[in-house]
Amino acid sequence: MSAQSWLPIDPKSQFSLQNIPFGIISTTQNPKPRPAVAIGDHAFDLSAFALAEGFKNLSPHFPQINVFSEPTLNAFAGLGRPVHRVVRLYLQEILTKDGKYSTVLERNIALQGKVLVPLKDVQTHLPMFIGDYTDFYAGKNHAYNIGVMFRGPANALQPNYTHLPVAYHGRASSVVVSGTPIKRPSGQILLPGTKEPIFSPSKKLDIELELAAFICTPNEMGQPINVKEADQHIFGLVLMNDWSARDIQAWEYVPLGPFLSKNFGTTISPWVVLTDALEPFLAQGLEPGDRDNLLEYLQEGKRENIYDIKLEVDLTTPNGGCQTIAKTNATNLLYSYPQMIAHHTVGGCAMRTGDLLGSGTISGLEVTERGALLEMNENGKVPVKLNGGEERMFLEDGDIINIRGVCGSEGAYVGFGDCSGKIIK
Amino acid sequence: MSAQSWLPIDPKSQFSLQNIPFGIISTTQNPKPRPAVAIGDHAFDLSAFALAEGFKNLSPHFPQINVFSEPTLNAFAGLGRPVHRVVRLYLQEILTKDGKYSTVLERNIALQGKVLVPLKDVQTHLPMFIGDYTDFYAGKNHAYNIGVMFRGPANALQPNYTHLPVAYHGRASSVVVSGTPIKRPSGQILLPGTKEPIFSPSKKLDIELELAAFICTPNEMGQPINVKEADQHIFGLVLMNDWSARDIQAWEYVPLGPFLSKNFGTTISPWVVLTDALEPFLAQGLEPGDRDNLLEYLQEGKRENIYDIKLEVDLTTPNGGCQTIAKTNATNLLYSYPQMIAHHTVGGCAMRTGDLLGSGTISGLEVTERGALLEMNENGKVPVKLNGGEERMFLEDGDIINIRGVCGSEGAYVGFGDCSGKIIK
Repeated sequence: MSAQSWLPIDPKSQFSLQNIPFGIISTTQNPKPRPAVAIGDHAFDLSAFALAEGFKNLSPHFPQINVFSEPTLNAFAGLGRPVHRVVRLYLQEILTKDGKYSTVLERNIALQGKVLVPLKDVQTHLPMFIGDYTDFYAGKNHAYNIGVMFRGPANALQPNYTHLPVAYHGRASSVVVSGTPIKRPSGQILLPGTKEPIFSPSKKLDIELELAAFICTPNEMGQPINVKEADQHIFGLVLMNDWSARDIQAWEYVPLGPFLSKNFGTTISPWVVLTDALEPFLAQGLEPGDRDNLLEYLQEGKRENIYDIKLEVDLTTPNGGCQTIAKTNATNLLYSYPQMIAHHTVGGCAMRTGDLLGSGTISGLEVTERGALLEMNENGKVPVKLNGGEERMFLEDGDIINIRGVCGSEGAYVGFGDCSGKIIK
Repeated sequence: MSAQSWLPIDPKSQFSLQNIPFGIISTTQNPKPRPAVAIGDHAFDLSAFALAEGFKNLSPHFPQINVFSEPTLNAFAGLGRPVHRVVRLYLQEILTKDGKYSTVLERNIALQGKVLVPLKDVQTHLPMFIGDYTDFYAGKNHAYNIGVMFRGPANALQPNYTHLPVAYHGRASSVVVSGTPIKRPSGQILLPGTKEPIFSPSKKLDIELELAAFICTPNEMGQPINVKEADQHIFGLVLMNDWSARDIQAWEYVPLGPFLSKNFGTTISPWVVLTDALEPFLAQGLEPGDRDNLLEYLQEGKRENIYDIKLEVDLTTPNGGCQTIAKTNATNLLYSYPQMIAHHTVGGCAMRTGDLLGSGTISGLEVTERGALLEMNENGKVPVKLNGGEERMFLEDGDIINIRGVCGSEGAYVGFGDCSGKIIK
């Protein structure tokens, strides 16, 4: 049985003692954004804890407590994974019932009052300052489903797909934290059967269910990151919804890829689940038989390279109906994050602390497992049936999409919290 | 006749009194990067000048002199174009012979010694912290030339090309200042007649002659910038070389656009020529007859919307031979910067101070006017003949490319300085 906390934690909570995800919070009383971890129903204010000398026991291993005075996690992330490990294990220890450091918080009610804030009373912010954001396309079933629609089953995957993790550069300024409303974009659209585009609000507003990784340790320009060491460069993961305007995308994307169809908003969950917290859930991704012989720089030498994360998409309509419209798993990826990072840097591209790497849309093989409405509705042919007689081809104004993701089992869930956005006019 | 400076300025200098471009410098004596302007053969240290109360006369209009203590121009740029104008005009005034403020510097030899540093003794740095970098494709002749190679003359331009300025998101971390060596990237390449990619240093390393604009005034996410007000959001322009690995590009770019073929290095010139300095050179770009009816959000209501900037590309080989391999003009653009900005933001994308917008490769109609080797060599068929019997299909190790750009005439040139990079192994 796992260690238990002295803090009451609902066994269904995604923020169990086994998780300890990092984020940035502010409160009405203290509007300054600052680092925190999520534990049960509470945010644990690391800035207040550092100020109260809560990290004193750790000072030989973690003298840089000033990183918790920053408005983002970049400074903490930049210290590297060995430091993240020490800090996370220490926080777990002081939260454990009758643990080694029980005097620090368990038996210090006054300090509890200063550092523990109910999650419902905190506002979350973007956890990192994002220098560059890249979106991969590593969800093979999604790539295949989309390919079938536009090129038929024989040519569904492009020839390069099984040789390299396809990706494009995204727009860092468009990344927003869960809860930020998403304004329906307007743009150029070519209506079927016409030759001149019109200017219109997008009529095909879609979602993309993704994971995204934050970079901690940077590399110098010109110095590729070895695939076998790449996991040391990953701070942790969040959920991501790469909102997409399919009609704007169809007209604009030739020949240089998606642009305005993607850069009006990309939502991420606020709590970064550290790589250490995810490692117990390493599992096999899609079969290597799906790929030809990978070039050496992409060979990890192990099969368990992707996390077993159960993923769900909930849609809440303005009528109040809420239901899960997709269930899938992160193991539906063909490439791992170490492979994505090795590929991204193999030509010399520099990663910086805070860079964000989307996985690409994650879909399973079944209709109920698809991570984008375009796949669910088979390119606008079959509306998604909702409870109460409603249906959806694409998103309508007032719709709320929430992506959820969780590893593990009751009492010890390692989850991501909400990744939510409401469509507004 | 234009106003003359008391400082001796070579009539052939690109940094005449009519220019006053802004950059970031450091020196051996003072290694801290700080703002400066270029004037003749000198850098004018704005940090030292501000410290010596040189801006005292301007304090009612420009109280924010602390922006010149920053290591980038972002804070100054963020003050907006009216402030840039006041500061540039004031610097012109104090540099003018027997000008209104001649006591400030012309008759203050001691201060001259503190603020004027020979350009040969300064190191230049990236002028701005770049949040996001976007590269457009607005050079119609280039797009046409490339299109002919791959799809034939009838389908050279994609149907969207004359309706919107095509663009993709680039990699901000890859942008470097002139003089930074460029390491030849390795990556996946599909050799002709084969089906399996190999891993190899790029054998088709190319250049792209571009302009690039820096954003000064940001917009809020969801608030598009009107095309008729977009010039107020442009801090100024630099030259850009968007180094490109054509063999990596050909294999990777389907279906999401260029990625590793572009993100190993993008060189910009160090001195930002302010929009005010360029306005006297507004000229007509490519004929509007080249486009169908533009949608209203792209209509500027004027034809003189692009700058008459003479552009040249010099190649220096390891043998020491140096020659100009291309001459063209910025008027070979189909879309203006205000149009690019209006398009970029029309769906709600947020621009931030310091964002960089590349124009796309600029080529004329003639063979001698092409801004990329791929166009000059007709897709690898006809090598470029160099003096002394050398020739080039693509760049070799040790080659140095320098892009130059200048407006105006002798004695009053408004130029950009060097945009140079050497290919290393």
